[in-house]
Amino acid sequence: MKHFRAYFTGLFVGLVASLVSVAPAYSADSLASWNDGPTKQAILDFVKKTTDPKSGDFVPVEDRIATFDNDGTLWVEHPMYTQLAFALDRVKKLAPEHPEWKTTQPFKAVLDNDMKALGAAGEKGLLELVMASHAGMSTAEFETIVKDWLATARHPRFNKPYTELTYLPMVELLEYLRAHDFKTYIVSGGGIEFMRPMTQSVYGIPPEQVIGSSIKTQYVMKDGKPELMRLAEINFIDDKTGKPVGINMYIGKRPVVSFGNSDGDRQMLEWTGAGEGARLMGLVYHDDADREYAYGPAGGLPNSPFGTFSQSTMDEAKKSGWQIVSMKNDWARIFSFDAPAK
Amino acid sequence: MKHFRAYFTGLFVGLVASLVSVAPAYSADSLASWNDGPTKQAILDFVKKTTDPKSGDFVPVEDRIATFDNDGTLWVEHPMYTQLAFALDRVKKLAPEHPEWKTTQPFKAVLDNDMKALGAAGEKGLLELVMASHAGMSTAEFETIVKDWLATARHPRFNKPYTELTYLPMVELLEYLRAHDFKTYIVSGGGIEFMRPMTQSVYGIPPEQVIGSSIKTQYVMKDGKPELMRLAEINFIDDKTGKPVGINMYIGKRPVVSFGNSDGDRQMLEWTGAGEGARLMGLVYHDDADREYAYGPAGGLPNSPFGTFSQSTMDEAKKSGWQIVSMKNDWARIFSFDAPAK
Repeated sequence: MKHFRAYFTGLFVGLVASLVSVAPAYSADSLASWNDGPTKQAILDFVKKTTDPKSGDFVPVEDRIATFDNDGTLWVEHPMYTQLAFALDRVKKLAPEHPEWKTTQPFKAVLDNDMKALGAAGEKGLLELVMASHAGMSTAEFETIVKDWLATARHPRFNKPYTELTYLPMVELLEYLRAHDFKTYIVSGGGIEFMRPMTQSVYGIPPEQVIGSSIKTQYVMKDGKPELMRLAEINFIDDKTGKPVGINMYIGKRPVVSFGNSDGDRQMLEWTGAGEGARLMGLVYHDDADREYAYGPAGGLPNSPFGTFSQSTMDEAKKSGWQIVSMKNDWARIFSFDAPAK
Repeated sequence: MKHFRAYFTGLFVGLVASLVSVAPAYSADSLASWNDGPTKQAILDFVKKTTDPKSGDFVPVEDRIATFDNDGTLWVEHPMYTQLAFALDRVKKLAPEHPEWKTTQPFKAVLDNDMKALGAAGEKGLLELVMASHAGMSTAEFETIVKDWLATARHPRFNKPYTELTYLPMVELLEYLRAHDFKTYIVSGGGIEFMRPMTQSVYGIPPEQVIGSSIKTQYVMKDGKPELMRLAEINFIDDKTGKPVGINMYIGKRPVVSFGNSDGDRQMLEWTGAGEGARLMGLVYHDDADREYAYGPAGGLPNSPFGTFSQSTMDEAKKSGWQIVSMKNDWARIFSFDAPAK
């Protein structure tokens, strides 16, 4: 992972971008962690025909917009969304200032590590946790809190920082698309200001190309200096039908490439596919319990509250020609710490 | 104007950007419509010191964010905002379908060309006009409506399409900044989907770098095809304290350059100026009634409901070192159809 981080960081992005625009296009080897097969071939074919000026499927550079879900598409979302793990840790850290939480749900459930009671608190309970842990500070303070957490928190199964639990084949795909002048965006149900502190270094995606859910902020003067305070009020939910809405609001263009992994991504893929001309849509399918997790409808896999992938989404994918990316079959490596492919 | 449009359109943008990254930086001649003087010099000095890696004020490429108000900063906002002229025309066009408008304010005022009654309808009346003229169609239909209007409507004084009433020195400034790897954004109180159909061809600014006010949209399936319907409900007002909020929401970085022209831009300039390191803030001052319009507090100019520039904004500008761009003194040409500067 270190290798990738250094590669993408800071000035190098600009440098690489300018070199690429005069150098020959990347070869297929940049998808080195993908197994040969129909999925990889579909990606290569799509990029070839949309970037060849002589092809009837050519897409001008300014229209090469590619949107990617984050949780479960670019990084791990089990045993729970990374942002939820952050919220729980944050509630525990703030608990000494809130003695009333010891006896109030859903906070009591968090402090007791009572996942059953937490589940019973439902969406309303989760929202309360998010507001208690994500609001009431300035945007600058929140950024520091997130960065500190990302630097120290470890995933319970892999015992690695969450920022190392990104899918290497997807990071390669982002890079491959950018090498062909696609502009890569994240379009996630996750919090926009939770993602932005890490997307540049981890994915090579700058803050201005991150779209996500958000809470309202308020411009205030504090000691003669302006701050944006984070309010305990939802601004926008970037999930399901919210994804095309968010794409239109932030980008104002229809993507030609979209990847997701769950029911929450269906409308984004529909919206992408409804445009004129060549399109590439894909869903990452979690069918590898050995190397990652297995959940979803097909083949009798268990369903999951994080990244629900229903049979009807699978049916729509097949009907609409969306690529199903099998983690088990299409990916030679999943994480950068997996043994390199031969 | 034709020259500039061709220059900025489509593929050329990418081409110019890639050439610029290997070619020497533009010379000061790219600000050809600016008179020599302290304002032009401040711009040249700022760009020089922030792009020189050996300077203590160097700004990395990824942080070179420049935000510009639109109405009154990049194009004419008198005798009324262009978008208001659009709304009035649109109400007149839709009137046959709404016989009740003949007797209902504020619609009656529009149909009677009664500007006094329209003014009396206040902000609430204006909002009703915007909702009646901007909502109830898909985003794709609205884009077509705007494009058709921009192609046919003429400014009452200059008898030119509104897209030709852009300020040549500001278009040059946008180009000059981009040539030095600044990313240029529009941050306007105007409607985001009213601006996007023209910003690429007129300013060289793509839709994804336009931030503005917006109404809510809803994802719906119509005959098996997804559409985004425009609802008669405000989503976001990108004015005054809303500008820093919008900048944070869309870009997630603090600008290092900001230009505006009115009280509505104050908070954007404050937010920009509060960052660490070198900054450039400017306000376009409309003091040239002969070539454009004259309004604002200083020198006894009349105030205006469109682009209010109060004495307290002027005071803050002077205190904070914001550049006051005098249209009369700093600009050799205002419009591309003015006689070329010698």
